[in-house]
Amino acid sequence: MIAKTPKPPYYAVIFTSVLIEDTEEYQKVSADLEALAEKQDGFLGFEAARSGLGLFISYWKDEEAIQNWKAVASHEIAQKRGREEWYDKFQVRVAKVERAYGFEKDS
Amino acid sequence: MIAKTPKPPYYAVIFTSVLIEDTEEYQKVSADLEALAEKQDGFLGFEAARSGLGLFISYWKDEEAIQNWKAVASHEIAQKRGREEWYDKFQVRVAKVERAYGFEKDS
Repeated sequence: MIAKTPKPPYYAVIFTSVLIEDTEEYQKVSADLEALAEKQDGFLGFEAARSGLGLFISYWKDEEAIQNWKAVASHEIAQKRGREEWYDKFQVRVAKVERAYGFEKDS
Repeated sequence: MIAKTPKPPYYAVIFTSVLIEDTEEYQKVSADLEALAEKQDGFLGFEAARSGLGLFISYWKDEEAIQNWKAVASHEIAQKRGREEWYDKFQVRVAKVERAYGFEKDS
């Protein structure tokens, strides 16, 4: 659920999207992309949620890992039906995580 | 929906959480916090989604704006019922957005 990321610094790719329609096919492509991401070098984890707006955050070791991932993901999506068919709009933000802290309830 | 942020660089605070229970009271506190954030100096926008995991990303002009916001938000939450009552766990990541790009379907 919450990604187990190492101590900063590392990178986050924040993908925010509005779908035209949340289809079963899109769900499948998302799951395929997640599975692909997990196999990439430098992949650290991801977190996703959708309620109207979709937020998908993937965490990466460095810029090189992000570039490699971008090439793979673009290829994968292009092979399917094309991003314009699913997205009304999206925004990608690449950010360097500088610090982090958390809380976990005692079980 | 998708935050209209300026050209990078700017900051993102990624707040990822797992709730013990998604209560009406928590919904209200979340809405209050969003309204408070919007009034802060240096606030650029926010994006939120919850489906099991909750993702709340706020965007800020600089570190100073984040520090000010942290003080206000902590105070607000402390005045209510305390974070331990709502959250099973959470993670906060402060990240510098270095680049961004987007897509919007022609209407």
